[in-house]
Amino acid sequence: MIQIAIMGFGTVGTGVARVVAENARQIERKLGEPLQVKAILVRRFQDGPYRQLMTDDFEKIVGDDDIRVVVETIGGVEAAYEYTRRALEAGKHVVTANKQLVAERGCELLALAKRKNVSYLFEASVGGGIPILHPLTQCMAANRIDEVYGILNGTTNYILTRMVRTGAFFSDALREAQAKGYAEADPTADVEGIDAGRKICILADLAFGSQVDPAEVPVEGISRLSLRDVKIAQRAGYRVKLLGRAVRMPGGGRTAYVAPHLIPEDNPLSGVEDVFNAVMLRGNATGEVMFYGRGAGELPTASACVADVMEALQSSPRREETGWSADTAGFEDPLELQSRYYFRVEGSLTDAAMAFGQVEVLSEDGETAFLTDAITGRDALRQSRPLHVLACMRVLG
Amino acid sequence: MIQIAIMGFGTVGTGVARVVAENARQIERKLGEPLQVKAILVRRFQDGPYRQLMTDDFEKIVGDDDIRVVVETIGGVEAAYEYTRRALEAGKHVVTANKQLVAERGCELLALAKRKNVSYLFEASVGGGIPILHPLTQCMAANRIDEVYGILNGTTNYILTRMVRTGAFFSDALREAQAKGYAEADPTADVEGIDAGRKICILADLAFGSQVDPAEVPVEGISRLSLRDVKIAQRAGYRVKLLGRAVRMPGGGRTAYVAPHLIPEDNPLSGVEDVFNAVMLRGNATGEVMFYGRGAGELPTASACVADVMEALQSSPRREETGWSADTAGFEDPLELQSRYYFRVEGSLTDAAMAFGQVEVLSEDGETAFLTDAITGRDALRQSRPLHVLACMRVLG
Repeated sequence: MIQIAIMGFGTVGTGVARVVAENARQIERKLGEPLQVKAILVRRFQDGPYRQLMTDDFEKIVGDDDIRVVVETIGGVEAAYEYTRRALEAGKHVVTANKQLVAERGCELLALAKRKNVSYLFEASVGGGIPILHPLTQCMAANRIDEVYGILNGTTNYILTRMVRTGAFFSDALREAQAKGYAEADPTADVEGIDAGRKICILADLAFGSQVDPAEVPVEGISRLSLRDVKIAQRAGYRVKLLGRAVRMPGGGRTAYVAPHLIPEDNPLSGVEDVFNAVMLRGNATGEVMFYGRGAGELPTASACVADVMEALQSSPRREETGWSADTAGFEDPLELQSRYYFRVEGSLTDAAMAFGQVEVLSEDGETAFLTDAITGRDALRQSRPLHVLACMRVLG
Repeated sequence: MIQIAIMGFGTVGTGVARVVAENARQIERKLGEPLQVKAILVRRFQDGPYRQLMTDDFEKIVGDDDIRVVVETIGGVEAAYEYTRRALEAGKHVVTANKQLVAERGCELLALAKRKNVSYLFEASVGGGIPILHPLTQCMAANRIDEVYGILNGTTNYILTRMVRTGAFFSDALREAQAKGYAEADPTADVEGIDAGRKICILADLAFGSQVDPAEVPVEGISRLSLRDVKIAQRAGYRVKLLGRAVRMPGGGRTAYVAPHLIPEDNPLSGVEDVFNAVMLRGNATGEVMFYGRGAGELPTASACVADVMEALQSSPRREETGWSADTAGFEDPLELQSRYYFRVEGSLTDAAMAFGQVEVLSEDGETAFLTDAITGRDALRQSRPLHVLACMRVLG
């Protein structure tokens, strides 16, 4: 019998208890013995089948030598950080879905785990139930990872899908997402790209092996995205998607950012709809591989946590493999990255051509929408200065 | 310094040597020490930079205690099986991309590896460089896997893509694939579904934890697929794809088969084109997750082998996790599986309706093409007996 504790009992925490109960047979077959939830840390006691496991005293969990793994689903940084640190110090493995904590303090917590010879695992923090971090760090270990990009937030992808399919405005699509439970009452973290920003930081850290400070990563969401641009892009064979992107720069540095992009229809990401997520990894040997599925939800996220619990119990800690060093040097401004740019301007094709030379016109209807050749973000800014810019987005690929 | 040997020096073997050389820095950073190819087993010596590592004497490899991992890229069963068995007996880890050997003897070789406390790893045997087996057995470990299906063969997917895009007949598309090096001079293993059959057996073994005998798995390729059916399907919003499919049956049994299917356009697999592969896993907690990328090729496949080498060196053997037992009981005929069926018949809509009741007509043009409701394969066969059937395929989903 292996015993674990769950800290926090919201959506993910409840899901962990459900997966442990419902898939007990599969889990026992793989672990060789049963897995049991011994304690659940809560702030307020709730009635229900787990009532007798609940405690509001963290000391009872950290001091219980029978508890070998702690699943942290509290969220945020403060209490979650403190309890994670103390659980690792006490020689317990810690598993989490807490992307904010991993993005901000992951490197430090991994180093602590290594010193204490335990594991700190967080597959569920990116992509919910989609296996991404494990394939990135293990299966692609023989590659130099050159780029990671993806649709990392299901709420915004749902909103964008509604805008494309039904021609809904952002505000209406957001209300629809809230009505379906896909967006929170305060949708800021999702629609402003903050959630995707945390995830791309974690992906960049693991892909490139050095720390990316979330405060350095420029993040743009979709709240100011115009339906007109979505429609113009669509008619030209593109889909607008909110991407997190991390790139190894030619000089050896690296960059990361979150912003809406035009995705050509022949890129598999263009077909990722509704609340689905997808992450593309580009390795120098493997080429591009994509992982696709539901990026959130109680059971998918919880099952990734439980798989990490099993991984922690079965393997010796192998954290040197993630190679995530505390070194934050080498982060470059994403404005150095080259790509084609989409512009919509209050002005004529002649205005556009005077600013950018040859351009590809997408629409001329009281305004001019066009694509530039590949240029750096810095040049896109500089060259567009004479124009009255209504919208500007990168084009992927 | 960690030393390995490569057995066989064709496409994949050469790729392994290249990945070890070209990504030496990434590999050393993760392993903590350099990785070196010490010996290469060949039948005929070839000139080139690896000439001095080549040997035609297996005893020199199996008897060399410095060699901790052997990468088997010989292919086929006989010599590959014998050398793999002896290398495992000698306490060496073995890594392979040899799907035929894994499908036919994998269970036995895994059991031997476990007894000798070493690893037998074969991520590269399915999906080339796409991480699939590792995510299936580790990241989805907390799921009951209910279904695995996918486009497992790049050659046939290239041919089907050409048929859809350019209206090429099978024969012309095959010649084009051969000219591009995507199909072999003798294309039988690819176009008759044999290659996909081996891969779906491996996936079924790992997903369900018990042995599926390749001889029991019905395999149908695309060599008799008519361009007419591809076109009718396309006009009706479907793509024809060759799928390997393994399903957990309601009664607890399992089944597996390979056959062309009609895939609805809103299924992400319908957009997988050219030589790309994609595998969908359905877990009871995670739902559907998809893995996409290049399923073959020198460097992708080789990098998956090298990642397995690193995995073998870093982890204690944890083969109980795969839970692949020698038990072959519980295999059911895929004719028991329900799905909608596509038929094209020499006959009228009235003939079709008399055989199947209500049907959905796709085309009436000297022949009648239609979709049935969901029925078992057995019923599809039985009910279609009065009809003159020109084509019959399952519809996915």
